[in-house]
Amino acid sequence: MKAINLIIIGFGNIGRGFSDVLLRKEKFLTEQGYKFRVKAICEWNGSIINNDDGNGINLNEVLELAKNKKFNEHKNFSEKTANDVLKGVDADIALELTPGNIRTGEPGLSNIINALNNNRHVVTSNKSPVALKFNEITELAKKHNKKILYEAAVAGAIPLFNLCRETLQINTINNIYGIFNGTTNYILTKMTDEGTDFNTALKEARELGYAERDATYDISGYDTAVKVVIAANALMKRKINFNNVQISGITGITEEAIKLAKEHNYVIKLIGDCNKSEVSLRLIRKDSPLNIGGNLNAVMIDTDIAKDITITGRGAGATETSSSIFSDILKIAEEI
Amino acid sequence: MKAINLIIIGFGNIGRGFSDVLLRKEKFLTEQGYKFRVKAICEWNGSIINNDDGNGINLNEVLELAKNKKFNEHKNFSEKTANDVLKGVDADIALELTPGNIRTGEPGLSNIINALNNNRHVVTSNKSPVALKFNEITELAKKHNKKILYEAAVAGAIPLFNLCRETLQINTINNIYGIFNGTTNYILTKMTDEGTDFNTALKEARELGYAERDATYDISGYDTAVKVVIAANALMKRKINFNNVQISGITGITEEAIKLAKEHNYVIKLIGDCNKSEVSLRLIRKDSPLNIGGNLNAVMIDTDIAKDITITGRGAGATETSSSIFSDILKIAEEI
Repeated sequence: MKAINLIIIGFGNIGRGFSDVLLRKEKFLTEQGYKFRVKAICEWNGSIINNDDGNGINLNEVLELAKNKKFNEHKNFSEKTANDVLKGVDADIALELTPGNIRTGEPGLSNIINALNNNRHVVTSNKSPVALKFNEITELAKKHNKKILYEAAVAGAIPLFNLCRETLQINTINNIYGIFNGTTNYILTKMTDEGTDFNTALKEARELGYAERDATYDISGYDTAVKVVIAANALMKRKINFNNVQISGITGITEEAIKLAKEHNYVIKLIGDCNKSEVSLRLIRKDSPLNIGGNLNAVMIDTDIAKDITITGRGAGATETSSSIFSDILKIAEEI
Repeated sequence: MKAINLIIIGFGNIGRGFSDVLLRKEKFLTEQGYKFRVKAICEWNGSIINNDDGNGINLNEVLELAKNKKFNEHKNFSEKTANDVLKGVDADIALELTPGNIRTGEPGLSNIINALNNNRHVVTSNKSPVALKFNEITELAKKHNKKILYEAAVAGAIPLFNLCRETLQINTINNIYGIFNGTTNYILTKMTDEGTDFNTALKEARELGYAERDATYDISGYDTAVKVVIAANALMKRKINFNNVQISGITGITEEAIKLAKEHNYVIKLIGDCNKSEVSLRLIRKDSPLNIGGNLNAVMIDTDIAKDITITGRGAGATETSSSIFSDILKIAEEI
């Protein structure tokens, strides 16, 4: 049995969803020869630390407390910060699952840097620090001979990076493009299928929890651009940042344009294009693998040998995203 | 530099496509730390064997000869059979790339068994032996502590098996279903998009090289069933064979049914369903990831954590299929 010790940083939606999946899959992981132990869980106001017994933190207990907003009433809670924990608690992998500020990348960026400097592997769902400082953090990981993996940071449950690295190894990737944002896809699908106007579709997306109250970040194309930056750097050896991405959002779309497209057997989708470093509305053939409805994501990988491979799935959701987090964790666990 | 020695059995379309990709990717593979050497190439009438120098067979030379149907004029050609070669020539991996007889699985089945009994790993693009004797050959591989991988045998360039095993590790797979046959998809797409009748669409598929002269195997749903059997056994721990699959083909489809489906925003596709062990025409929503045009394949993986993941790509083509063959080879090479 291989024991893998984890530190979880961020116990919001994703952190709790991950913990729930870890509990559900305990038996399966044991059969695979792994025992995962959570040695610490860090939140913005303090941490729960358990490094004195062999089983790690009882996640059921912490999930119950967190549900009732009593995280800081846990018997092992102290005001230690994530940085204190990364220095003082022994673990193999740090999971950075905080929500990221897109301008500064914080607090995730500092957490990732501190984790690597303390010789932990890092798995993150946090797109902001990865997009802002891709080269810096991948270089730092290399320096410490540790891995930084971020499957969950782009397109949720879709295993884009591991698909390319673990199954399309022989291919040169010419382009990666597609639908990286579920909110805008939901809005465009509603407008196309039901003739709904933009504002009504946006309102519905909010009601269904697909869009934040402030959906500017999605609608402006900025969220898609973040993912384009990560995918281009990670899989196409580009060295681009936001300033290199030509971004336009979906607000300019008209009902006439959608209707005209339909008449010619096309749909209009917001496409992020890594090769062109561009986010823009584009015409997509109705029978293209990129014409997917609802709030799904779909990514097309244009390669030299396999030609086009498209992968489609849920771009969000705490449980769904955990599939990608585990994909990274198990890749690291194999090598430990 | 890790030297990996190969035996290629079958130098038809796939074997030559693979050799061509191996030549094109030599520099890339060297950068990855691998030197692949082809120690023997076996055809139905004899084999080219090169086990006396460090570089293996000059593939350019054999490709040129094969193009001119002069395979047996190579200086190292002899009448040795694949079985002689598997016994006598030292190699790490045997590539079984012959076309398979679907009733007997031969000659692939014997080649796979002989390769495993001689302690070679096996990578195959040959669906017949894998579908006919799935349990027998996977058990035999286990007994010899060797791998048998068959990514190229189902859905061509789509890395279905490695996707599930290497990126969706935490998921339980509830179902795998989709479009596993490009010929029938081409015919149905033509009938749907252009109102072409069945016989005209079939004729066009033949002219484009998507269908064999005898397309019974595709049209009857039998080819799809072969892939359902492999995927169900490999990824869902089923123990099924052809007799368990309910098969219906596409010949019963009417222009009226297609029209009616269209009016309700559906398309009709030939779907292989691993959970139900069924091949049948089904209604698919127009904005479903399974509504893909042309002769593409699309496979939906229904999981407990990631939910639905769909992967789409070319189901055939010698170059495209080589992507899957390399995916398997590099997985084995990592572990050698």
